[in-house]
Amino acid sequence: MDDPHAARAAFRSGTITSTSGWANGFAQANLVALPREHAYDMLLFAQRNPKPCPLLDVTDEGAWRTPLADADLRTDLPRYRVWRNGALVAEPTDVADVWRTDLVSFLIGCSFTFEAALTAAGVPLRHVEQGTVVPMYRTNRLCRPAGGLRGPLVVSMRPVPAELVATAVQVTAQVPAVHGAPIHVGAPEALGIADLAAPDYGEPVALRSGEIPVFWACGVTPQAALAGSDVPFAITHAPGHMFITDIRETAYRSGG
Amino acid sequence: MDDPHAARAAFRSGTITSTSGWANGFAQANLVALPREHAYDMLLFAQRNPKPCPLLDVTDEGAWRTPLADADLRTDLPRYRVWRNGALVAEPTDVADVWRTDLVSFLIGCSFTFEAALTAAGVPLRHVEQGTVVPMYRTNRLCRPAGGLRGPLVVSMRPVPAELVATAVQVTAQVPAVHGAPIHVGAPEALGIADLAAPDYGEPVALRSGEIPVFWACGVTPQAALAGSDVPFAITHAPGHMFITDIRETAYRSGG
Repeated sequence: MDDPHAARAAFRSGTITSTSGWANGFAQANLVALPREHAYDMLLFAQRNPKPCPLLDVTDEGAWRTPLADADLRTDLPRYRVWRNGALVAEPTDVADVWRTDLVSFLIGCSFTFEAALTAAGVPLRHVEQGTVVPMYRTNRLCRPAGGLRGPLVVSMRPVPAELVATAVQVTAQVPAVHGAPIHVGAPEALGIADLAAPDYGEPVALRSGEIPVFWACGVTPQAALAGSDVPFAITHAPGHMFITDIRETAYRSGG
Repeated sequence: MDDPHAARAAFRSGTITSTSGWANGFAQANLVALPREHAYDMLLFAQRNPKPCPLLDVTDEGAWRTPLADADLRTDLPRYRVWRNGALVAEPTDVADVWRTDLVSFLIGCSFTFEAALTAAGVPLRHVEQGTVVPMYRTNRLCRPAGGLRGPLVVSMRPVPAELVATAVQVTAQVPAVHGAPIHVGAPEALGIADLAAPDYGEPVALRSGEIPVFWACGVTPQAALAGSDVPFAITHAPGHMFITDIRETAYRSGG
C-alpha cells in the first residue's frame, strides 16, 4: 500500500499493523501529545536531543490536524498508547474519546522514512522480511534532561551485512530530519544492551552470520522519558505504529 | 583577535564593536533572553522558523551560562538591547543590573560564523572591508507565528561578485546550523526591499559593478517579532554585536 491516504484510511477503519514498509517513500512520524502545561519541557527535550527527537511539526494547542498530512491525528494511526502519571494505561486504536483541548502534538521523524532508500540501495530489512515490529532497545546513554523529562536514549536496530554497513551509513546520513546516520555500529554491549533477542520495544530479529547490528536513534525516546515522569496525561503512538505523512522522504534529504 | 576568550574579555571590559571578523573560525550567536512564561512561544517560533532561528542552545531558567562557551551571558557581548512591552528602551554594554532569575536564554546561529570560510574561498566581505555592521533588512516574507510572536523574516546582505555567487552558496550551504545557504540571490525588490542603501539594522555597504546582493536569513528575526509583541521584558544582543562561542565553526558543518 504505497498511497498515504489509503494507508491512513485502512488504519482509521481498524487495520492494526506496524507501518514499516507502508507508503514507501513518504515520511513517517512518531507522535507525542501532551498538555500545553508540559509542552515546553517536551519542546526543550527535543531541542536538546535532536538525534532521537527531530521535530517535523508542533501543532497549536488542541489541534488534531498538522500541515504534514490531510489527516486526523486522533484516528489515523494504527495503534496508540495512553499514559497517565507516567504509567502506560491503554493501547487503543483510536483516541478521539480521550482527546483533550489542551493537547499539543509533537510529530517526530522516524527511521521507517529511510527504509525505502535502504531497500533501493540493496540493504535488506529483516523486520520487514519477518513481518514484525523493528526491535528497539533502551541504552545506557542518558538524554540531556529538560524540566521533568529525563531518560535513556532509545535505539532501533537493523542487522546489516558487513559489506553494506558503509552503504547504510551513507544512505541514512542524507536524511538528518529522520534520525540520520546510525549512532552506533556493532558492539551492543557498549550501549548497555545485554541481549539483542530481548528488545524493550518491538520484536527480535534474526542476526545472521556476517551481519552487524546497526543502531539508529529512535523516536520512542520521548516515551522512555514520559515513563515515570510527572506528566499527568499523554498520548503517543504505539512503537512501530507510526503516523504516515503526505511529505515525500526526499523533501528531508540534506541540501533538499 | 582570533581567540574567543580574549575577544569576550575585551567586550567585558568595554570594547564596543561589531563582532564580524572577530575570533575567526569560531561560531557566533544571536541572543534572545525572555521570561520563562514566554519561552515556549520563542521555542516554538524557532522550531517553526528554522532558517532564521537555528538554535545552538537554550539555557535553563535564570542561567547566565551556556555549554557553548566559558562565558557570562550578562557581560560578554559588546552591546545589548533591552526591551519592555515590545519597545526597545536601552542599548547598554552590560545587562547584569537588569538580569532576572526567570530569564531563559536562546542562542541562535549567526552568519558571521561562516564569514571566515567565505574569505578562505575568496569571497570578499564588504562590511568587513568597510569596518561597518553588516546591513540587515526586514522583508515582505512573514514568519510562521507562534503564540504572541509574529513578524517578518529579517535578512543580512553581502554583495558577491557574479562569478563567486555559486561558491558563496556552496560554502554556506555546508553550515545549516548558522543559517546555511542564502534564501535569495539578487532582485531585492522581490523581498520587498525598496532601497539597499537604507537597511533596517546595521549600515549600508557599497555595491560595485558586477556584484549581486546575496541575502541570508538573519538571527535578528526574533527581535522583529519581539517588537510590538506583548512580551513584557526581554534582552537581546544589539544587531551585529554577537555572542562569541568556544565552538569551532567546523563543528556545525553538515556531516560533521
